[in-house]
Amino acid sequence: MFESYETGRKVEKSEFEERAATLRPALLNAQFDSRTAGFPIVVLLSGNDRAGGNEMLDLFHEWLDARGFDTSVFRDVNDAERERPHFWRYWQALPARGRTGLLLTGWAGRRVYERGDGDLDDAEWEAHLRHVRALERELVADGTLLLKFWLHAPRKTLEKRFERADKDPDSEPYVEKTDEGVLKNWKGRWRAAEDLIRRTDTAWAPWRIVESSNRRARALDVFETLLSGLRWRLGMNSASGELAEPPAPQLPPLGTRRLQEVDLSATVAPEEYRERRRDLQGKLALLSRKARREKVATILVFEGWDAAGKGSAIRRLTQALAARDYAVTPIAAPTEDERRYHYLWRFWRAIPAAGHIRIFDRSWYGRVLVERVEGFATEAEWQRAYDEIRDFEEHLVEFGTVLEKFWLHISPEQQLARFQAREITPYKQHKITEEDWRNREKRPAYEAAVEEMIVRTGTSQAPWTVVSAEDKRHARLTVLETVVRALERAVG
Amino acid sequence: MFESYETGRKVEKSEFEERAATLRPALLNAQFDSRTAGFPIVVLLSGNDRAGGNEMLDLFHEWLDARGFDTSVFRDVNDAERERPHFWRYWQALPARGRTGLLLTGWAGRRVYERGDGDLDDAEWEAHLRHVRALERELVADGTLLLKFWLHAPRKTLEKRFERADKDPDSEPYVEKTDEGVLKNWKGRWRAAEDLIRRTDTAWAPWRIVESSNRRARALDVFETLLSGLRWRLGMNSASGELAEPPAPQLPPLGTRRLQEVDLSATVAPEEYRERRRDLQGKLALLSRKARREKVATILVFEGWDAAGKGSAIRRLTQALAARDYAVTPIAAPTEDERRYHYLWRFWRAIPAAGHIRIFDRSWYGRVLVERVEGFATEAEWQRAYDEIRDFEEHLVEFGTVLEKFWLHISPEQQLARFQAREITPYKQHKITEEDWRNREKRPAYEAAVEEMIVRTGTSQAPWTVVSAEDKRHARLTVLETVVRALERAVG
Repeated sequence: MFESYETGRKVEKSEFEERAATLRPALLNAQFDSRTAGFPIVVLLSGNDRAGGNEMLDLFHEWLDARGFDTSVFRDVNDAERERPHFWRYWQALPARGRTGLLLTGWAGRRVYERGDGDLDDAEWEAHLRHVRALERELVADGTLLLKFWLHAPRKTLEKRFERADKDPDSEPYVEKTDEGVLKNWKGRWRAAEDLIRRTDTAWAPWRIVESSNRRARALDVFETLLSGLRWRLGMNSASGELAEPPAPQLPPLGTRRLQEVDLSATVAPEEYRERRRDLQGKLALLSRKARREKVATILVFEGWDAAGKGSAIRRLTQALAARDYAVTPIAAPTEDERRYHYLWRFWRAIPAAGHIRIFDRSWYGRVLVERVEGFATEAEWQRAYDEIRDFEEHLVEFGTVLEKFWLHISPEQQLARFQAREITPYKQHKITEEDWRNREKRPAYEAAVEEMIVRTGTSQAPWTVVSAEDKRHARLTVLETVVRALERAVG
Repeated sequence: MFESYETGRKVEKSEFEERAATLRPALLNAQFDSRTAGFPIVVLLSGNDRAGGNEMLDLFHEWLDARGFDTSVFRDVNDAERERPHFWRYWQALPARGRTGLLLTGWAGRRVYERGDGDLDDAEWEAHLRHVRALERELVADGTLLLKFWLHAPRKTLEKRFERADKDPDSEPYVEKTDEGVLKNWKGRWRAAEDLIRRTDTAWAPWRIVESSNRRARALDVFETLLSGLRWRLGMNSASGELAEPPAPQLPPLGTRRLQEVDLSATVAPEEYRERRRDLQGKLALLSRKARREKVATILVFEGWDAAGKGSAIRRLTQALAARDYAVTPIAAPTEDERRYHYLWRFWRAIPAAGHIRIFDRSWYGRVLVERVEGFATEAEWQRAYDEIRDFEEHLVEFGTVLEKFWLHISPEQQLARFQAREITPYKQHKITEEDWRNREKRPAYEAAVEEMIVRTGTSQAPWTVVSAEDKRHARLTVLETVVRALERAVG
């Protein structure tokens, strides 16, 4: 999940100063208004970047009116805390109505490291996640504006920082010797953090993951989200206690650039393609038979732009499979009968039996793509769908299902060329409709939806593979390779 | 928890026929209207009383229009189910909009027995509970009316039934040999069921526990709840998909009679009282010192009618305690400062440190008692408070805190006599105010609130003790004994 954020993006000083110049007075005004409106604000600053969190705390005090803050930095447990239930210290740190609690790490800190380091067993970890969800729900239902930031620094950034601190401690005033623990058990803590974020990323208290290596970009991400959250909360009529159920805060689009970063120039030469394809299809044939024998189910999800080559990529898979082992399920708009059920119902029905492979040509992700963009689902519906989809896929993964999800990516220009080719090729004319042209107009809205989908539903258990599909051969090989690797992990 | 329902109440045939005569046409009309309104209805019939569930299924088909039903009886897992994730079978059983799914056991069946029998580990059980909550939330958010009944038969009822079935199988057509498993591991399954109910008794999908030993009473409980749920759902404007967040269904008061069943004639003679008090206070003194040494925290919650004797019962405890070990916290209406926080905030602050005893004279239960009855909390607020309070108390219990909760019960007549005595006794006049007289007028509303509180928050981890307090000596001894026993379990 976190790789999605490792974009290495930077903000130049001039751009930063320009955006800060409008952001700062707007934030101050919103902070003042929120005091008058009288709701509490909780800002949770957590992540693997402790120094970055401390720098943000300083910026909060610099940019905003520090008199409204109750700042709590959670480090080691003190005596009073040790003698009480773990959450006692978080309750002590909660702000009164009209005030802002700045919590460094909070309930997304210590327990995450403990879990990552193997010091919390399953039951303790589940209890923690349950209590986090309960607490967040209670606070938001009570009128709190709750904003949760996970500051993610890539491993290289942290390594450099620790090196600098070793040479000259003054250059990195917030780095402490113990911080280096984050590198020692990188994978374990990463997994625990991802688990926490996935399981507590709710409609009412969504996480914002912020790439933390560039200070200016980080500050703008956090403060623009804060401003947007404040304005959304100020726009609500009920200042406190009157919310029957917590609504979803409206935050700006996430700062990911997964699609922009796809290397669309990737190509594969015809000969290389034939050879590797033959090799991969051979492996796939063997692995699929083994999966059948071992009763492992497989689900492959294909999403992507119109004309990105989903159909042809799927065919290169099925060429290697025995007809008895797989089925391809194309997903269109739900029928009248299907609309009489929960939108996930038709997908539950289509789950493959153990030992079978089910390929979805479009899928349940329509809820957060076409239904979101075209307004077929209300905002409340598609907002809660991320949580619902994660729960659905958890059922699959817990059952041992191999689950791979592909987004086939092409440029608008490539799409145009393919549309035009379809229009003049007789046997392809059925593949292009008025609707395809209309969807093309809405590309920016779709891009935002795709970014959010990848970030909020791409987990280590059920990852998204964003496929560079400008070159069809490259796309097909990427898909074949990903499926072969996944099956090798499961039955190889 | 289930003991609360073992009231042994019966409904005579004549009363049953009278109530059924108005209930049946009303139900048919509501069923017809719900089909037109086009929302799905899910009725989950679970419990330790499998035969009772089957009898209810028959009654559903007899009383209502059976053409609208999709009935699913979940017994052993079949081949198709074994080859898919566990919840697949529940999704198959979900009704379309306008139809009613009758699910016998459903997601509150097999998994509960498996957990009770030790066949599910912590992680698997937590995953199940998480998926249940997610599913229920999804369905209700999507417009489903979801009603969950747990049919509880006392052990004796089941024993008799199995005996009858042994002698003459035709007399108990729904009893099967395997059903007797419920008696073999009574405690384990009871605990698992209680855990499930506690953790999935949400504002949007509350449980209704129904005592199942009397067929007529059981039928009236279920159908009256159904009618009330249907009417509530019909009264909502949005037929489907438009609910940003699931609201709380308005169901009739629970069928418990915990207060009516208290034996108010219980008394203790003065001499016996002195002797047992001395003995218990001696034990309490020793145990409290041991708890201090072993760093076990204790929380004692006192609720009860005005003039029921909370203060004097507390004094009999504190007489035995060292002043350094305990504190009594009287809870009045929150101050202006306290109102600036979540209502649980002031109670989190008051949590005793490990090794200490904190006695609450009134408590966080004010949320679902005085605040509910007097309208200081909105319905949404006090409805979600049961869940919030259970989570709060889970924190305490997980930390190892000894938690005992008392409701001191007296009759209205006894209360009147004590009020009058207070008015004429100079040193007691401060204890009686206009408000006490006003509260007295609202006794029926308070009784309903007390019943619901005991049932929805009384768990094996944090039980309620309803104390017969008509005789003060009896009340004081009951409290002393309960506290001594709880401490003995913890440190004895």
